[in-house]
Amino acid sequence: MITSAANPRLKLVRRLASRRQRERLGLFSCEGEDLVRAALEAGVQPVEVLVDAERPPLLDDLPHAEPVQPRLLAELSALAHPSRVIAVFRRADLPQLDPANPPPVGLALWHVVDPGNVGTVVRTSDGLGPAFVALSPGCGDPTGPKALRASAGAVFRVAIGRFDDAPRPRAALVPRGGTSLPELELPERITFVVGAEREGLSEDVVADCELKATIPLDPASESLNAAVAAAIALYESRRRRR
Amino acid sequence: MITSAANPRLKLVRRLASRRQRERLGLFSCEGEDLVRAALEAGVQPVEVLVDAERPPLLDDLPHAEPVQPRLLAELSALAHPSRVIAVFRRADLPQLDPANPPPVGLALWHVVDPGNVGTVVRTSDGLGPAFVALSPGCGDPTGPKALRASAGAVFRVAIGRFDDAPRPRAALVPRGGTSLPELELPERITFVVGAEREGLSEDVVADCELKATIPLDPASESLNAAVAAAIALYESRRRRR
Repeated sequence: MITSAANPRLKLVRRLASRRQRERLGLFSCEGEDLVRAALEAGVQPVEVLVDAERPPLLDDLPHAEPVQPRLLAELSALAHPSRVIAVFRRADLPQLDPANPPPVGLALWHVVDPGNVGTVVRTSDGLGPAFVALSPGCGDPTGPKALRASAGAVFRVAIGRFDDAPRPRAALVPRGGTSLPELELPERITFVVGAEREGLSEDVVADCELKATIPLDPASESLNAAVAAAIALYESRRRRR
Repeated sequence: MITSAANPRLKLVRRLASRRQRERLGLFSCEGEDLVRAALEAGVQPVEVLVDAERPPLLDDLPHAEPVQPRLLAELSALAHPSRVIAVFRRADLPQLDPANPPPVGLALWHVVDPGNVGTVVRTSDGLGPAFVALSPGCGDPTGPKALRASAGAVFRVAIGRFDDAPRPRAALVPRGGTSLPELELPERITFVVGAEREGLSEDVVADCELKATIPLDPASESLNAAVAAAIALYESRRRRR
């Protein structure tokens, strides 16, 4: 049982609270039975597993679990009710977008900063997919704690890649001036491009897209949340493919 | 200029950080030029306005503004970059759902706890509406700081009411077993009922709805975020009404 805060496994989890460290080490940590279960069900194996020594998690097939003094495990938790399990995974073990063989539909996020939005987009791409998610530099980290929670485990099932690898043709989602989404002719393969929370898409990014689509809005309103706009695009494309 | 932390106006704003106090006083506070501008444009007048004495906000027609020492105003802020303005509004001045004359479409949220989800639903009801939002007891407070930010000012334009006042017929959004949403026959007037983040809708609430609708999902996935499901229902109903 781990009884010292100086234990290197605990230190590793603490270090992974920082995005820079996650990127440097290629690792991330996940809290809670739901997320760890989603990983195991998707066949993604943890490299470290820490469990509450007094309240072991309700999980089958958990490998190499290391019991930790409850107080020490609670100190690592970002949640109000500390979890029974924290596991560390390799980023390279997550599903990756294969540009040579991508799913027919996907989303490319341009500077979507909020990790809650990134995680929600991943969750929606699972539910209304299968669809890939491509992320530009400056997007929230899908393996950070908020994004993982918002993804509800979908991060272990959805192929994630780089913005530049998102296949063409691409349709920029713009708040006005595009073809009305319900009337947009959808090619067999499509990437919907979604812009930043406040600034939307830059002119360059829009000009680089083959298509422009607009979700019809009430004239008095300004725009939709980025994750909501992404979800509506996926829903529309799924509805048509049925 | 306000130079003391004991000033009663500052004390009031501090008090309004608590939901219970907001409910007791019937007041709420809003931070930032975007939200305050949305209020003024919607014709909702603040009862108190506090502005940074050194960086006045870029707002026209701001009534009775009280300059505050920057350090004191920053202490009231929930944001990393403190705002130039904090204003207090009356809850009774927000648009209310009139059960005798509601918009034809709306959402009724059942125990949707997360204030970010509640605010996003309000924003979407503005963009894809006009649609009302009805809230059950236990829902996040639409006038709390996170919900206000997520609403992006829509809280000043969208009619909000009580769950029990949501008009009929009602369609429960259920993860499986309902009529596929794209095939649901939509009556002229409809309330979509959306369940809690984890538990969804109770059997009682579903049984009390005239219709059941399901957003078709990938079989491997479990569900969508509550605000995403709500947005897709509104989009589908708007698409058909065009």
